[in-house]
Amino acid sequence: MGETPERPERRRRLRLVPRYRDQGYDAESVDKRRRWVEEITGARLDGVGGAVAPTEELRGNVENPIGTVQTPLGVAGPLRVRGEHLDDEVYVPLATTEGALVRSYERGMAAITRAGGAQTRVWGDRNRIAPIFELDDVAQARSFAAEVEAHGEQIRAVADGTTRFGRLETVHAVPVGRRVILELGFFTGDAHGMNMLSRAAGAVCAWLSDHLAPDSSKHLVLSGFSAEKRPAGSLLRGGKGKKVTAGCRLPPSVVRSILRTSPEEIVALWRSTVLAHLATGAYGYNGHAANGLTALMIATGQDVANIANAAVCITSFEMRGEDLEASVTLPSLTLATVGGGTGLGTSAECLEMLGCRGSGRARRLAEIAAATVLAGELSMGAALASGEFVAAHEAYGRNRPGGGAGDPESGA
Amino acid sequence: MGETPERPERRRRLRLVPRYRDQGYDAESVDKRRRWVEEITGARLDGVGGAVAPTEELRGNVENPIGTVQTPLGVAGPLRVRGEHLDDEVYVPLATTEGALVRSYERGMAAITRAGGAQTRVWGDRNRIAPIFELDDVAQARSFAAEVEAHGEQIRAVADGTTRFGRLETVHAVPVGRRVILELGFFTGDAHGMNMLSRAAGAVCAWLSDHLAPDSSKHLVLSGFSAEKRPAGSLLRGGKGKKVTAGCRLPPSVVRSILRTSPEEIVALWRSTVLAHLATGAYGYNGHAANGLTALMIATGQDVANIANAAVCITSFEMRGEDLEASVTLPSLTLATVGGGTGLGTSAECLEMLGCRGSGRARRLAEIAAATVLAGELSMGAALASGEFVAAHEAYGRNRPGGGAGDPESGA
Amino acid sequence: MGETPERPERRRRLRLVPRYRDQGYDAESVDKRRRWVEEITGARLDGVGGAVAPTEELRGNVENPIGTVQTPLGVAGPLRVRGEHLDDEVYVPLATTEGALVRSYERGMAAITRAGGAQTRVWGDRNRIAPIFELDDVAQARSFAAEVEAHGEQIRAVADGTTRFGRLETVHAVPVGRRVILELGFFTGDAHGMNMLSRAAGAVCAWLSDHLAPDSSKHLVLSGFSAEKRPAGSLLRGGKGKKVTAGCRLPPSVVRSILRTSPEEIVALWRSTVLAHLATGAYGYNGHAANGLTALMIATGQDVANIANAAVCITSFEMRGEDLEASVTLPSLTLATVGGGTGLGTSAECLEMLGCRGSGRARRLAEIAAATVLAGELSMGAALASGEFVAAHEAYGRNRPGGGAGDPESGA
Amino acid sequence: MGETPERPERRRRLRLVPRYRDQGYDAESVDKRRRWVEEITGARLDGVGGAVAPTEELRGNVENPIGTVQTPLGVAGPLRVRGEHLDDEVYVPLATTEGALVRSYERGMAAITRAGGAQTRVWGDRNRIAPIFELDDVAQARSFAAEVEAHGEQIRAVADGTTRFGRLETVHAVPVGRRVILELGFFTGDAHGMNMLSRAAGAVCAWLSDHLAPDSSKHLVLSGFSAEKRPAGSLLRGGKGKKVTAGCRLPPSVVRSILRTSPEEIVALWRSTVLAHLATGAYGYNGHAANGLTALMIATGQDVANIANAAVCITSFEMRGEDLEASVTLPSLTLATVGGGTGLGTSAECLEMLGCRGSGRARRLAEIAAATVLAGELSMGAALASGEFVAAHEAYGRNRPGGGAGDPESGA
Repeated sequence: MGETPERPERRRRLRLVPRYRDQGYDAESVDKRRRWVEEITGARLDGVGGAVAPTEELRGNVENPIGTVQTPLGVAGPLRVRGEHLDDEVYVPLATTEGALVRSYERGMAAITRAGGAQTRVWGDRNRIAPIFELDDVAQARSFAAEVEAHGEQIRAVADGTTRFGRLETVHAVPVGRRVILELGFFTGDAHGMNMLSRAAGAVCAWLSDHLAPDSSKHLVLSGFSAEKRPAGSLLRGGKGKKVTAGCRLPPSVVRSILRTSPEEIVALWRSTVLAHLATGAYGYNGHAANGLTALMIATGQDVANIANAAVCITSFEMRGEDLEASVTLPSLTLATVGGGTGLGTSAECLEMLGCRGSGRARRLAEIAAATVLAGELSMGAALASGEFVAAHEAYGRNRPGGGAGDPESGA
Repeated sequence: MGETPERPERRRRLRLVPRYRDQGYDAESVDKRRRWVEEITGARLDGVGGAVAPTEELRGNVENPIGTVQTPLGVAGPLRVRGEHLDDEVYVPLATTEGALVRSYERGMAAITRAGGAQTRVWGDRNRIAPIFELDDVAQARSFAAEVEAHGEQIRAVADGTTRFGRLETVHAVPVGRRVILELGFFTGDAHGMNMLSRAAGAVCAWLSDHLAPDSSKHLVLSGFSAEKRPAGSLLRGGKGKKVTAGCRLPPSVVRSILRTSPEEIVALWRSTVLAHLATGAYGYNGHAANGLTALMIATGQDVANIANAAVCITSFEMRGEDLEASVTLPSLTLATVGGGTGLGTSAECLEMLGCRGSGRARRLAEIAAATVLAGELSMGAALASGEFVAAHEAYGRNRPGGGAGDPESGA
Repeated sequence: MGETPERPERRRRLRLVPRYRDQGYDAESVDKRRRWVEEITGARLDGVGGAVAPTEELRGNVENPIGTVQTPLGVAGPLRVRGEHLDDEVYVPLATTEGALVRSYERGMAAITRAGGAQTRVWGDRNRIAPIFELDDVAQARSFAAEVEAHGEQIRAVADGTTRFGRLETVHAVPVGRRVILELGFFTGDAHGMNMLSRAAGAVCAWLSDHLAPDSSKHLVLSGFSAEKRPAGSLLRGGKGKKVTAGCRLPPSVVRSILRTSPEEIVALWRSTVLAHLATGAYGYNGHAANGLTALMIATGQDVANIANAAVCITSFEMRGEDLEASVTLPSLTLATVGGGTGLGTSAECLEMLGCRGSGRARRLAEIAAATVLAGELSMGAALASGEFVAAHEAYGRNRPGGGAGDPESGA
Repeated sequence: MGETPERPERRRRLRLVPRYRDQGYDAESVDKRRRWVEEITGARLDGVGGAVAPTEELRGNVENPIGTVQTPLGVAGPLRVRGEHLDDEVYVPLATTEGALVRSYERGMAAITRAGGAQTRVWGDRNRIAPIFELDDVAQARSFAAEVEAHGEQIRAVADGTTRFGRLETVHAVPVGRRVILELGFFTGDAHGMNMLSRAAGAVCAWLSDHLAPDSSKHLVLSGFSAEKRPAGSLLRGGKGKKVTAGCRLPPSVVRSILRTSPEEIVALWRSTVLAHLATGAYGYNGHAANGLTALMIATGQDVANIANAAVCITSFEMRGEDLEASVTLPSLTLATVGGGTGLGTSAECLEMLGCRGSGRARRLAEIAAATVLAGELSMGAALASGEFVAAHEAYGRNRPGGGAGDPESGA
């Protein structure tokens, strides 16, 4: 009585997760909170509570902390990278639970390294955010856009005043009827920069509202136009993070001994599967770029949800004389070496493994990531082309622990 | 001399990561391997080696194991879900390093729960794999496709003979010139099922090669057409995992007290940002579906690279009388409760928290995931609509540890 | 005074185009209407009024008729087509004002015919229409969809009762939150069938409203989901009209003599330009399929706006031994031989040229169209690969009337 | 004997369409050629030969001319356009065979005009062409791109030297592995400009090959990246022709009297059908923009195959107080008033009707086209929202000549 049957919780107080003092990032609060969850859900969370990492450092990265989850970490390498930001052999940390993934990437890395390494280049390094303004009509929208274009200097000054590291580089006005989307392109240093961008965009919007936009206008600081963490055709143009290419040329001997197929077969695979990608309306073309990228991003404390934009990738395989030429193009690769989760315990260690910890290392990390993706593309392509694919998953899959050794050099 | 300068590694033996005995999943081998990596890279990997989880269970999930990475785990709830596979309040484990994410989802959950919960429905439950056959010409391709269609029973028998849990449900032949893509749709029970699918597809291809395809034909067991782990228009039709919807109706009082905005403002935001999504060529529309999904997938041991397909999502906000009606549609949500990483230490614990551990729970998990995404969409939409977005990131961002408490019920 | 300055026309009566008696399709009314337009616009419309075609037959195809526009008609051929619906040489009427287009297609046709003709196959023949229903919530939407699926027979009977020629073949329910899109797949005989589909869909919606949908539900008979006359990823799966492939295999001698390049160069072009298509987010891949299709559609009285869906095309060039294998795949080719504009004066004549006038000829027309597109792809590919492209446009472009003869066999 | 059965035509001379003297554009040659086609195909082509237009002017627009095809021309109006390039009432020529199309657009125009007209704005006016260069490897590609960027002045000078009217405005280098796509953005005056662009791009490529590209490089003058005549995500950013918006605000009285529905119902339709467009992977959102655009393009002698890019359109309907606000955004609208087919008989007359004949009128034409599309969107939206859609097609469809009069003002 007095309660509508459809909304029985209406008057009951929600059993919120306990905050404890100062949001409770101290070990004791985390423990108490975890025990509270155990009690209310009936689950045992020994593993979640078992990590050695100090929990106070979680502040700013998570709320209502109850511990950590552990993802298995394998290592693949050596991977020779010949880039502008490193010319070195690296061993790549990959956090994954997908059997055969590490072995597959390792095999591709062996092939690349044997053949002299992967060339890598960073073509662009910019993140974008896209507020949207709502004007009275189409004419007013056009006038406002013209005003925006005429005040580039002031807008840049407003944006740059909100950040020590970032820099507003481009301002584009995109019309949709009576609305104007502002695409702001920032250099964000070694950080991912979305917080930096949000702050700067907020300031730009406030300034525009005060100075250029009519009183009747409204705005939103994010519109989705930037394609952060979502699939969109615009990602192919870049604008979310680094735009990177990696390439290598493998002689037939390397393809045969390590990848157990031939350049011709891999190129034939490319042709067939490109057609299938076109037939399914894919953005880009690749074998499994998301696999290695995700494993690397979990290992190094990246914002893993960015895989939705970062994994847009165009892989190419083609003959060069008798050799196999392979490349990957990653237009929207969001990676950071400072900020976010990159400084936390195991993330910092994994970045350290790559020589990518801290400032000035984000482009190095992007080059390593692109070379890693290239390795995975080669290995997956080879597995499919040679008919080994199913067999490899059998060998390393959960239910077949005694599978073949698969030494990448065993046939070399 | 005798060495080409461009490929100096040519003759040198690669310094591969040590395998040790039986691939080295025992604790000692893992330790030795980690120390080997420390030595060769100069990094200290104390955290990577510090987890309490026994390492032998990693076999089948990772190769060259050197330990684990730890991702902070927060918990958000309560979330009331009124689905076909649960009618319950749950607390959702979210593994993330993005500050404010857990708080944001928690707020949306509070709003949903206060309003009586989220309705959820699973519309489909099928995974697909797409081999490609290469025939001699367009005419032969058409004949082969006709033969395939005429032998559906036999093909199903072949596929089903390779798996105890899976079931081949649909076979479509898609032409591309002289090639035929076979789209095989499987029910995979509570497992993700890609290994199961690969094995079944391998058997189907072998059978077709022996019985229906001309001797000159070739095939690949994967073509990319299935859009596994890649963005593609075909994902909107479903076919990768569960097709799920979640919806709720929030009275203005809940929107105001918990989300600190009004139904009208959220609906106005939807209109503007849908236009921006259209203008950027996005697949689907959503605020940040990838965020919560990724955090949930890391926590529960999913194959996180699947976020590339799983995060395709269409969010809707609209007025119903004075209320806010909200929904999310996730056509390609790949989630499992058995197999892959789901049985490992912390993953099993997190699934346990949700009542989703083991067989018969995958659809329950899908309903919870959809309701979680819905919560995140509401909270993000509210933050943007109210102008709070920048402020919230300031409050919970790394550099502002003392930010406001943000109790979702503080204003209720 | 009394008038707001922004809307001065408010009270003035609009000067509508005169209707005359019975909508005025008789010659005198058409003349009077044209003179009225001449007077009000100041334009001279002698050409518009100069066609010999009787105007009464325009009824049902256009309103407010004032005459006709004339588009230049060229003819290209011979084109040998080896399909299921013809095995013949045809001459293809192409209505265009783009210089060099007819010559280019003619060249490709010569190459195909010389090499024995183009194989063509029709894989599917279905048009679709997609009403949308709005239900109360996610749960009701799921129930309604289940009801729809359980009443397939009745729905088919309702649809088929509205048309003598069409047949409802498939019914799919696609969820979006609390809405259900019904994708109805029809066989439409030799007609385009959109009017037929609209009528049938209207009847189906009415029946569903009366029998299965809750009283509170609403619906729209069209939702846009069918991708009629708009670009969409779903077109690649077919569903708008015929799904057709055409292919041919050209020996190097033919490629050299007629196309003035080599199979290898055309295949190299394909590889490079596929990458560019991927980089620009294209749906499908082709050189200029829209060109020939548009010219054929104008000539034969098709609904030319359908080019937006019909021109989605995947072209493939590859080596087969020393030969060039080429194919095109057109998944959504909307073409008719009855209804719409197909029976009008010059349209009927152009269909007659192809042996495609009237009932039972639509698939023949589709096979010819696909072979025509194939010819254009070969010729454009050759022009680009050989560097002739710019020169050809110079030769046939408006400002260079005396350009080279370009006999497709001159070098044979 | 001596002939392979698969290629019987091999040795036979092809029966090419006769060229006659100087390609045969004189009336006699055209007649002879048409009779030759009649004889070989058995078709009667009286209508094709019956147009009064002199045929010599076809030179440069078509090859192998045999006459013209005639498309019915209706006229819709008045349409009040309040743009930057006109502030006037116009009557729009629409060449179509789709019954009800002209009436539908006329109704939308009446509503717009009654409410004071459509505001229109041209936001951009640029056409693009995209050659692709192939370099040795990823590193060389990056270096070449840097060189290109450093030589913008010289490249512009080379391009501008090939044209009197065009102007190269932007040069972007887009990487795909070892290839570099050059996106060249041109202002093309009032011409479509593809011939101009091809010539300029050819010259730029030649200059780059001579001066900046390594000897081993290759290039193609077209790559498809520009999305000329094909659907692609990049079209939403513009770059093919004019970027135009049109908008209007209709009071409820106008919506009710002319469109026979309410602003609320049209806005509700928009919400539902936007979801369906998202669910089908559409590029953009619109009701039937392709319909009116195609009819206008055929009437005015445009390159109609461009509808594949031009019809990408985002339509918006929303409430403003009690009024209906509507807009269309056309980012890639390729229209010309000089060159191509625009000067031919009926095309020139139709352009004259609009005050758009000749130089300096292309933006005026673009504004009229956008306003026309807006009218069609309003009328189609209203027909669907009110349930009139099926009925209207019945009334004006071919088989129901006596349908209702449908005076757009009958209820005003």
